[in-house]
Amino acid sequence: MVKIADLETPALIVDLDIMERNLARVADYARQRNLRLRPHTKTHKTPAMGARQVALGAVGLTIAKVGEAEVMLGAGSPDLLIMYPVIGRSKLERLMRVARQTRLTVSMDSLEAARQLSDAASEAQVNVGVLAEIDVGMGRVGVAPGPELVELARGMLRLPALTFEGISFYPHIKMLDDEGNAQLKAVSAMIDCALAGLRREGIAVNIVTGGSTPTLFDSHRFAGMNEIRPGTYIYNDRSVVSVGACGWEDVAARMLVTVVSTAKKDHMIIDGGSKTFSSDRLPLAGEVTFGLIEEEPDALFHKMNEEHGYVDMSRAKGRFQVGDRLRVIPNHICAAVNLHERVYGYRGDTVEQVFVVEGRGKLQ
Amino acid sequence: MVKIADLETPALIVDLDIMERNLARVADYARQRNLRLRPHTKTHKTPAMGARQVALGAVGLTIAKVGEAEVMLGAGSPDLLIMYPVIGRSKLERLMRVARQTRLTVSMDSLEAARQLSDAASEAQVNVGVLAEIDVGMGRVGVAPGPELVELARGMLRLPALTFEGISFYPHIKMLDDEGNAQLKAVSAMIDCALAGLRREGIAVNIVTGGSTPTLFDSHRFAGMNEIRPGTYIYNDRSVVSVGACGWEDVAARMLVTVVSTAKKDHMIIDGGSKTFSSDRLPLAGEVTFGLIEEEPDALFHKMNEEHGYVDMSRAKGRFQVGDRLRVIPNHICAAVNLHERVYGYRGDTVEQVFVVEGRGKLQ
Repeated sequence: MVKIADLETPALIVDLDIMERNLARVADYARQRNLRLRPHTKTHKTPAMGARQVALGAVGLTIAKVGEAEVMLGAGSPDLLIMYPVIGRSKLERLMRVARQTRLTVSMDSLEAARQLSDAASEAQVNVGVLAEIDVGMGRVGVAPGPELVELARGMLRLPALTFEGISFYPHIKMLDDEGNAQLKAVSAMIDCALAGLRREGIAVNIVTGGSTPTLFDSHRFAGMNEIRPGTYIYNDRSVVSVGACGWEDVAARMLVTVVSTAKKDHMIIDGGSKTFSSDRLPLAGEVTFGLIEEEPDALFHKMNEEHGYVDMSRAKGRFQVGDRLRVIPNHICAAVNLHERVYGYRGDTVEQVFVVEGRGKLQ
Repeated sequence: MVKIADLETPALIVDLDIMERNLARVADYARQRNLRLRPHTKTHKTPAMGARQVALGAVGLTIAKVGEAEVMLGAGSPDLLIMYPVIGRSKLERLMRVARQTRLTVSMDSLEAARQLSDAASEAQVNVGVLAEIDVGMGRVGVAPGPELVELARGMLRLPALTFEGISFYPHIKMLDDEGNAQLKAVSAMIDCALAGLRREGIAVNIVTGGSTPTLFDSHRFAGMNEIRPGTYIYNDRSVVSVGACGWEDVAARMLVTVVSTAKKDHMIIDGGSKTFSSDRLPLAGEVTFGLIEEEPDALFHKMNEEHGYVDMSRAKGRFQVGDRLRVIPNHICAAVNLHERVYGYRGDTVEQVFVVEGRGKLQ
């Protein structure tokens, strides 16, 4: 039996009890509220985790890139949703090989992306679902929920080998305080507007898919939304805690690191930097730090280079020696997972299962 | 013949003519100034590139992690320097397998790290070189160049299976303006102090290793330094240009990306975000942007999510369509390379060689 104490650092470790509780809680919530659950796999990038989500009742899995879809076929999901326009002949040919093995839907905000997909699907003699993406306030992708949406949906309906399934969006609500609740109402109004516009044209809508981890347990409050795509909830992280969407006790993932230098007074260096954690900061402003050191929450992990984490110990009570091991809760677990070949699942002090992050670094 | 136009995006492409010129220029400089060149491989993480550096006269290669050393054995270098303390039995056992295949030196700032290395080397019956690392102003790792250094060097000399080789440091000089030149003099004074202290104790010093890409061509101005370890110079990036240490014409690496959304006016989304570029910012303050778009330098690549790059086009003259391809010069090429499985070496419009980034993501 491999013990956590035997692992080389830095290592990404996951408390399996907490992870299983997170998976079950969200599956239960979706079932009770009659919401389809299509978890985003960008957080774990691991077919074994996708398979667990499907076993707990997920209707399918959400994916960002074709390379991740190829890997995630291993989860045995009957349905994959690519929440990203797939552009270019070579990528579309790969995607059609995926479409021959499972039901596939792709979300996009342009007729150009729809045309390319239709051409590829026609040639491959498969049918692919499409979602028209609307912008509900994030300003990233998505058409406006008015005439632009109707035009996009109409165009999709005219294209061969595609089935228009409905609309998709990402509610960019960071925190459900008063302002967040007002935003939630505004998003609901935009969904209403989008659905009314399509209804007026007689365009049938099966799927209204949204949801994010910060708003997860308020998903039933979004008007008309019948599907959610949370990702981070499987592991959670400091960002999710910082916006009040889970407690520290719900964070399953930690970075196991070693102290490698204490040469400078009131300061230490750990063997995890931006190559281990990513350089992502917390979504809300404030002091810039890159993780919470569990053994010493008053230590300030304030700076990183690729292989060095700088920790200011001036406010901390204890002191550590070269060779001591610490556990750090990362800011953004999705970005961190992408940097690791393996995730170590543990219970107590024992590593129970090693998961290979098969979808790591699949950029295309 | 694969053309750049055939590559799926996002893809990291390297202009081989520029890269070869960069490699030759630094090799020539080191030879002319009688400096040993031990390039840091953290930038390319690719044995084929390490082999080119060795062929051009590098005395050895510099490495951050044991896993990278295992990979970099493939470069055929007669000498590897690990610029990082290696802590923990399991990692040291792996390192000793490397030490049986090539001359090995390790840099560290604590006797605890030296003791662990000595124990492992004794058991493996190999001899390993050690460098005592000093802090010359960065405040990261390294002992002070006074009595602490003498104590560390003396301790190293007493330990079996180690050969004390000298001192190492990283000059944290961002730009060689007036302030940078003053810093260079201060670093020289600290090296002098360190060497004088060791000399008084009769401790012989073979290697005085420092150097960084921003100060690269002024390396001969550091008192006593006889070895340099630049890394970024092989590809260069926006950071190196921004501190005045190379010109745009010396940047060999670009990210090839595709426009995937233009739904929002004066705004577009490219298919490279933090998973493609890393979230690293420029070292000097100012407007936060994540890369320079070659085709439209007035476009502002101002924000990223993992798979989305946000580009503000309001200051730009041209406009692009979904499917258009662009080339972006990244802020920090070392962090970007770590995210890519492959680097595509090209001349003109043809991909001449595909390099697998074998050292990618080697965290331990």
